[in-house]
Amino acid sequence: MAGNTFGTVFRVTTWGESHGTAVGATIDGCPPGLALTPELIQRDLDRRRPGTGGAASPRQEPDRVEILSGVFEGQTTGTPIALAIYNKDAHSKSYDHLKDIFRPGHGDITYLKKYGIRDHRGGGRASARETAARVAAGAVARLLLARHEITVTAYTVALGGISVTSRDLAAIDQNRLFCPDPAAAQRMEEKIVATRNAGDTLGGIVEIIAQNCPAGLGEPVFDKLDGELARALMSIGAVKGVEIGEGFAAAGLTGSQNNDPLTPTGFASNRSGGILAGISNGDDIVARVAVKPIPSIAREQQSIDRHGEAVTIKIGGRHDISAIPRIIPVCEAMVCLTLADHLLRQRAIN
Amino acid sequence: MAGNTFGTVFRVTTWGESHGTAVGATIDGCPPGLALTPELIQRDLDRRRPGTGGAASPRQEPDRVEILSGVFEGQTTGTPIALAIYNKDAHSKSYDHLKDIFRPGHGDITYLKKYGIRDHRGGGRASARETAARVAAGAVARLLLARHEITVTAYTVALGGISVTSRDLAAIDQNRLFCPDPAAAQRMEEKIVATRNAGDTLGGIVEIIAQNCPAGLGEPVFDKLDGELARALMSIGAVKGVEIGEGFAAAGLTGSQNNDPLTPTGFASNRSGGILAGISNGDDIVARVAVKPIPSIAREQQSIDRHGEAVTIKIGGRHDISAIPRIIPVCEAMVCLTLADHLLRQRAIN
Amino acid sequence: MAGNTFGTVFRVTTWGESHGTAVGATIDGCPPGLALTPELIQRDLDRRRPGTGGAASPRQEPDRVEILSGVFEGQTTGTPIALAIYNKDAHSKSYDHLKDIFRPGHGDITYLKKYGIRDHRGGGRASARETAARVAAGAVARLLLARHEITVTAYTVALGGISVTSRDLAAIDQNRLFCPDPAAAQRMEEKIVATRNAGDTLGGIVEIIAQNCPAGLGEPVFDKLDGELARALMSIGAVKGVEIGEGFAAAGLTGSQNNDPLTPTGFASNRSGGILAGISNGDDIVARVAVKPIPSIAREQQSIDRHGEAVTIKIGGRHDISAIPRIIPVCEAMVCLTLADHLLRQRAIN
Amino acid sequence: MAGNTFGTVFRVTTWGESHGTAVGATIDGCPPGLALTPELIQRDLDRRRPGTGGAASPRQEPDRVEILSGVFEGQTTGTPIALAIYNKDAHSKSYDHLKDIFRPGHGDITYLKKYGIRDHRGGGRASARETAARVAAGAVARLLLARHEITVTAYTVALGGISVTSRDLAAIDQNRLFCPDPAAAQRMEEKIVATRNAGDTLGGIVEIIAQNCPAGLGEPVFDKLDGELARALMSIGAVKGVEIGEGFAAAGLTGSQNNDPLTPTGFASNRSGGILAGISNGDDIVARVAVKPIPSIAREQQSIDRHGEAVTIKIGGRHDISAIPRIIPVCEAMVCLTLADHLLRQRAIN
Repeated sequence: MAGNTFGTVFRVTTWGESHGTAVGATIDGCPPGLALTPELIQRDLDRRRPGTGGAASPRQEPDRVEILSGVFEGQTTGTPIALAIYNKDAHSKSYDHLKDIFRPGHGDITYLKKYGIRDHRGGGRASARETAARVAAGAVARLLLARHEITVTAYTVALGGISVTSRDLAAIDQNRLFCPDPAAAQRMEEKIVATRNAGDTLGGIVEIIAQNCPAGLGEPVFDKLDGELARALMSIGAVKGVEIGEGFAAAGLTGSQNNDPLTPTGFASNRSGGILAGISNGDDIVARVAVKPIPSIAREQQSIDRHGEAVTIKIGGRHDISAIPRIIPVCEAMVCLTLADHLLRQRAIN
Repeated sequence: MAGNTFGTVFRVTTWGESHGTAVGATIDGCPPGLALTPELIQRDLDRRRPGTGGAASPRQEPDRVEILSGVFEGQTTGTPIALAIYNKDAHSKSYDHLKDIFRPGHGDITYLKKYGIRDHRGGGRASARETAARVAAGAVARLLLARHEITVTAYTVALGGISVTSRDLAAIDQNRLFCPDPAAAQRMEEKIVATRNAGDTLGGIVEIIAQNCPAGLGEPVFDKLDGELARALMSIGAVKGVEIGEGFAAAGLTGSQNNDPLTPTGFASNRSGGILAGISNGDDIVARVAVKPIPSIAREQQSIDRHGEAVTIKIGGRHDISAIPRIIPVCEAMVCLTLADHLLRQRAIN
Repeated sequence: MAGNTFGTVFRVTTWGESHGTAVGATIDGCPPGLALTPELIQRDLDRRRPGTGGAASPRQEPDRVEILSGVFEGQTTGTPIALAIYNKDAHSKSYDHLKDIFRPGHGDITYLKKYGIRDHRGGGRASARETAARVAAGAVARLLLARHEITVTAYTVALGGISVTSRDLAAIDQNRLFCPDPAAAQRMEEKIVATRNAGDTLGGIVEIIAQNCPAGLGEPVFDKLDGELARALMSIGAVKGVEIGEGFAAAGLTGSQNNDPLTPTGFASNRSGGILAGISNGDDIVARVAVKPIPSIAREQQSIDRHGEAVTIKIGGRHDISAIPRIIPVCEAMVCLTLADHLLRQRAIN
Repeated sequence: MAGNTFGTVFRVTTWGESHGTAVGATIDGCPPGLALTPELIQRDLDRRRPGTGGAASPRQEPDRVEILSGVFEGQTTGTPIALAIYNKDAHSKSYDHLKDIFRPGHGDITYLKKYGIRDHRGGGRASARETAARVAAGAVARLLLARHEITVTAYTVALGGISVTSRDLAAIDQNRLFCPDPAAAQRMEEKIVATRNAGDTLGGIVEIIAQNCPAGLGEPVFDKLDGELARALMSIGAVKGVEIGEGFAAAGLTGSQNNDPLTPTGFASNRSGGILAGISNGDDIVARVAVKPIPSIAREQQSIDRHGEAVTIKIGGRHDISAIPRIIPVCEAMVCLTLADHLLRQRAIN
């Protein structure tokens, strides 16, 4: 109810603040018999490390995950899996000058209004650091999906106004922006450099595709699979929009254009994004999210302090130019968590 | 878990099929002391009646709501409120020829794959008829919001590729399309006529605004208010995309363009759509949804039957040209339900 | 959250007041493909009718159940099943003199303190009438259990201080008290007559046995099957105690006396009541509940009114002498609902 | 859903196995502004340490709790509180000979049947060690209750067939059995010694009292406060029965004996145990639980191995003679968690 738990059967609760002792996740409802190791989780965690992309800040987070429970002799037992990532490289001193000031575009003011108290160090609980726990839990969900041969892949389709014109999934891991169009990736990198020099930040669009997902996942009427994916993805801090299949473009089509004809060998097109009436149809599930530019910019901004007085603020410290590419594994994690949950929910039907 | 319940504190469970005995909703968690009458609910229900807009089918649904429990001497008592709307004008015979065929763009095939059985009459549970129960429940939520002077208004901002160029909220109730730009509404109506003649259907975009919403609503990290709204709105059958504030446009902005400066008298702009870090900031909450064209078109389509054989299908019966405007009160209902729930969730903080 | 929903996968929400329009239940999560008819539900409902036992009041409740959704061509479809029982024989006038007075042993005062408002007619939502909806929903759960050959049977083991000395399950349906010891039943009936003449009421003990339940049901650590049964049974108004297997008697035993030895052909005894570490072990599940005497007695009692003034009160109207036997099918219903839910929960393990 | 979470608003998820890396709890929904320190939690944890009572095993568990998140500058922030207790004195080798054998009275067989895999070291997740996490979380709940001046106290009222004849709450902390009757405590200690010498174990009865609890807590109809307490207490491994107020004794009373008369100065008696119609009435809440004898006895027992072959088993290692007194703080914790949750649930009413 307080919002830190995701899922119904495969339930994940995350905890931890940007500059606290640790961040972590507890997974309740993971099936027994999965071969789970710290290394497997580490692989996904490493993909969201800063410094791995041109848009990233130089902060070094080793992000070593520890499995504290739920695994016995290398296998999950069906009991809760507790994961912890201790915080190491956290300079909380650098936030002291911000403790009475609300940073524009951040949750500083809303957290204070909600709770009457806030941990100002690096955004506290609202920090993107929280997503490390999501990625760790998502790796466990991905392991469950792998048992059913379902794969989930996210990649950059737009950054700073530059869009891909082709999608070569094999190219994704060959550039720092997880971009399926190498030429576009090159121009995006140039845009990042120019924007960094201008003391500004960039937004973009991420696409996520789930392949080999069986038909029948998703629950009518309020827990439709597209609605669940929308919530999952929109719960990532920087995301301001979600669309499935044709998405907003469908608003401009006619029915005869937008319907996917059925044929004896499958759907003739996939404008639905693999979901009909909220239930997966066996085709690829395709979603896209709008990522806003990071609000921590190096320029002077107008704001107020907690007494309501006008101030100017210039945010120093170590910040990324764009939430892309670090948001990529987070998007994958949220889709993995959603599908793993619905895969298990579907089991309870009969 | 089976997906027919919405909300955490203000919990609504809907039930009923398009051509069954009735549709209805049970609300558990409505506060006591609200002056609730059938007439108040009826007012919202009447707005989603077919025949009230040029895009609507001629099917006449009187949709008389009955309050079966939870109200005593005109006031809610804190016990569950059961609402029922008996189905009357339902021609289930007209669906008999479709019972073994999957209509493109509909959930016929996914329901069968999920459950192994389906009620083929008018889409059964997947029918838009189910939204009558949402609107009824939403009227109760709206009554709770009114106690806090929160208002929720939805309107058409695009239809068939025609977009509004102005937003006069006073104009909304003066045209059949709930459109805040009368000139655009006129062109939309003409597009509807042309599309009906062509045997096709149209998509569009609806915008929803919540005013006077206090700061502090929404729960980090998975139950962010924008995520909850996204799920609520995406759970409406025809919706394929949701965005908050600048939404997808934010992906093309820089941080200095997208941040809303804070001033002693409030935010200087509202690109965030009233939500920061998933929590309402006191400004207007603004969301938009992409509505796909209705898949039941009057043209011949390619499909398959339940044995996998290719068939051609031409859907007769009474169908709307667009889910707009009937989806408008449904969008309002889902936002009312979301805000009412989070208003009560916020009470449990201390 | 507001307490009117039971279950996690097989979820039942009941609604309705003693003297409102109707009482009913919505079941979300019932598997598809069950052959469900009103007659099947009616059979269980008829067992809780007043007038069928010597301890019962003469109020005649026809209790005709209607299935409003979720069943198509005689089979459940996997969509919500809405059940309604319209109230007919309800003399709300007879409660007018009680509207400002709190009846001892009833929830009149606690409902008012909780909600600030109460429906005083026959206890409103707190009336035992609410259990009709539980029994109706329980009949659907029983149908699911029958698919797995699980049976649930409740019977009277003590009434007014008279205990059974034998348990012949075949005798249960041959006396009005659902008592497995015909000789004890005879003495209980005599005690009822004497107590009625004295203007008083009686308590008793009900035992419930579930047979053919597979091993593995129940979830550690908080949702242990015994804990879930305890909550389910204690949620029946008149129940003040629950025990499993040896129950309170186990407190006086030693480990060597209380342990059930395992043998190649099964457990050598069943002091555990079929549950080990909160999980069913395949043996019969055995629970007992303490039923308090009905608080509505024909004698003058001391109480207060809503202004806190002392009053004397003599409750007229039509009242049972004991909650037994009418509570018997309610106990069965709650155990059926609990087992059906855990049967489906267990499916989601893998 | 997998059973490791307790509560609705004040939600606790526990994790960890007897001989794993650590046990712990995550609390989501704790209000902000509580002054929480490790020392405060430690105080409750120390009360359940072995070696503090004559019935306890000599195993030394330092049980140092660490707060990993949710507290900033000594105060809770409203974000999740993660608690961890690392396991230190765990001799997992001593369980190797039991890995293929089912101990009578334990969950060894049911865990294997449920999950197809089990951690045999000391009972794994089913071990009483798990209750350390409950006690830690319960200490946080107790802190919230203290803000409202609610106190929760548990004590031994029977052990090995010896019952208290008086209740002096001041005496509880003056003997190792938390017994309010010093003379009875003395006889209980003697019984423990004799039983230990006989290689056997003992059961008993614990009573729990909550004082200063406001009227209005508890939710009709399925989440009645007594039902919730029953589930909470029955979820403790050794508990086989729960009763409220008069409990099973009420089954032998008449209505005129059992009803608590209301007077202008309060209830004239408290046979209801402070709960009417599932809602607290402002009087003391009183519950009792039946604690079974510990199944790990030093005598030879008959059992089977995982292949179904008959074996004899003699459990060595370090074991308590009775779950009392170590279960006392666990009972308190579960009642604290239940009341804290319902205190917050009641806030969401309006």
